[in-house]
Amino acid sequence: MSRKYGIGVVGATGAVGREFLSVMEERGFPVGELRLWASSRSKGRQLEFNDEKHSVDVLSEDALSGLDFVLISASGAISREVAPKVASAGAIAIDDSSAFRYDDDVPLVVPEVNAEDLASHEGIVAIPNCSTTPIVQALAPLHDEIPLCRLIADTYQSVSGAGGLAMDELGIQTQAMGRGESVPVNTDVFPHQIASNLIPSIDDPRDDGYSKEEWKVSAETRKIMHLPDLAVSATCVRVPVFRAHAAAVHAEFETPFSVERARSILEGTAGVCVVDDLAGEQYPMPSTAAGNDTTWVGRIRADMSHPNGIVFWVVSDNLRKGAATNSIQIVESMIDQGLR
Amino acid sequence: MSRKYGIGVVGATGAVGREFLSVMEERGFPVGELRLWASSRSKGRQLEFNDEKHSVDVLSEDALSGLDFVLISASGAISREVAPKVASAGAIAIDDSSAFRYDDDVPLVVPEVNAEDLASHEGIVAIPNCSTTPIVQALAPLHDEIPLCRLIADTYQSVSGAGGLAMDELGIQTQAMGRGESVPVNTDVFPHQIASNLIPSIDDPRDDGYSKEEWKVSAETRKIMHLPDLAVSATCVRVPVFRAHAAAVHAEFETPFSVERARSILEGTAGVCVVDDLAGEQYPMPSTAAGNDTTWVGRIRADMSHPNGIVFWVVSDNLRKGAATNSIQIVESMIDQGLR
Repeated sequence: MSRKYGIGVVGATGAVGREFLSVMEERGFPVGELRLWASSRSKGRQLEFNDEKHSVDVLSEDALSGLDFVLISASGAISREVAPKVASAGAIAIDDSSAFRYDDDVPLVVPEVNAEDLASHEGIVAIPNCSTTPIVQALAPLHDEIPLCRLIADTYQSVSGAGGLAMDELGIQTQAMGRGESVPVNTDVFPHQIASNLIPSIDDPRDDGYSKEEWKVSAETRKIMHLPDLAVSATCVRVPVFRAHAAAVHAEFETPFSVERARSILEGTAGVCVVDDLAGEQYPMPSTAAGNDTTWVGRIRADMSHPNGIVFWVVSDNLRKGAATNSIQIVESMIDQGLR
Repeated sequence: MSRKYGIGVVGATGAVGREFLSVMEERGFPVGELRLWASSRSKGRQLEFNDEKHSVDVLSEDALSGLDFVLISASGAISREVAPKVASAGAIAIDDSSAFRYDDDVPLVVPEVNAEDLASHEGIVAIPNCSTTPIVQALAPLHDEIPLCRLIADTYQSVSGAGGLAMDELGIQTQAMGRGESVPVNTDVFPHQIASNLIPSIDDPRDDGYSKEEWKVSAETRKIMHLPDLAVSATCVRVPVFRAHAAAVHAEFETPFSVERARSILEGTAGVCVVDDLAGEQYPMPSTAAGNDTTWVGRIRADMSHPNGIVFWVVSDNLRKGAATNSIQIVESMIDQGLR
């Protein structure tokens, strides 16, 4: 690519925002103009990209003109306000929020799984929730072999999924705990202490007893895999880990799936790396995934409770493949496909 | 009970051993003679029970005579050696290891679920693994209403399940992390860093791809619930929490189970407390369970992926109900049943 692309980042100083810059830099993405926006609190802050300092500004509507892609990772409310304006200004919004994910005219994309859906975009593309992305990355190639019927996923999600302030909160609690002090329980981000604790509630509650995060795993898996009736149930749990999300996945297929075949398929899947040697104490962990773009799969075995079931464990960095990297890969895929 | 009982404790200075003493003290259990044993490292240490100091000794065979019950929580090897000698000496061994759990002539008991199995003892009674106990406590009363067909359980297990040294290891890593130092990764108890990490491997690896801990959930649930063919699959994960184990449970029944009925049954179950208000941010957490004897159930909802499924979240203190309390309750139940 000799052409360079004008990129805007909304939420540039956030946990995912900073990863957008790191990922573009590492991948040598051809950035022409770069405009960084955040809340008024961050106005004037300088962020480095390719050894140059860039000032962070507050977004104004006229600042959107002339860009190719705008990467958004702020809040659902900001996405709802900004993304349509991005599209109107002629750029493409790549949105990290859940604001547009379930809209029929907005592609929801993991490039390794459904890059072809990008062609139907109307100026806004959504990326999945960081707990869904690694699950569909592992399930899609298995489903290509034998149709998937049912998914049960129980997640182990790091605090960084709730943003930089949540990481600070676990950090402060960890420090207090390390000093032997009683841990602060009046918390800003989480409703309960998270250090040395588990919070089985992520995002808003729903009337059906599921959290919105759990519902997302279902709705997003169905949309990305083009399986609108797939049976899905999830339990989403926040764990005292700084970075990377994990999930225990129980998948049922139309006919029996050999473990060897499943492993071989996953070993050949782009973006996925299999680490699976229980006897050798090798399996994916958050420490395996933190800071890289790979979706790590291990603990692949037959579901002892179902003749057509496969069980596995998947881990990926929620700020990278779960957010920033997936967004940049979408941008790259759209360029490759001539969609920009 | 006016009679007093002679009690021996093997592994008295360990994480569970100390809980045996606390639990007996709190419950006012009528202890007559109390003999405390541990490894030679701990010989001469003094432990308090009912405001009296008791010396810890190294177990010798003749020291077993004249006791009623011997509570064992050390290693499988020690249990295998000591428990038969306890039975030969005329006392009853209550064993916390997996050494005898699967033997046909050894009852495996959670008193709220299968106290009647105690009658068949031949001098050794086993208690379940700390991850299984809360799961069967919640499943048994539901199964009494509609037969259970299948169980999927993914666990979130605290480090105290691996003993006091494992708690020290997380403590040291937490301190280092709190000071901003790089966390030691060369570890004594766990093969990988556990602070801010997840280790999806507990106990020995098996040839079928499951860990022994995962297999235990299956084998022990089947034995305790008298369902030798129950379909069970588990994923067991160590989490950076000091105390209390949690599990996301997906249970399938022969016919549809109303969520309201399931909740009502669990609310009426002895030993179980339901905390289930997602909108009000109330659900069981390790911080709810640590230090008490209750098995806490919440997040009760329909399994969106199966017409006959119920999903819930269960948390209990692995050192208390998962080990010491369950052992003492077995002793009390045997006395109540006239088995001693």
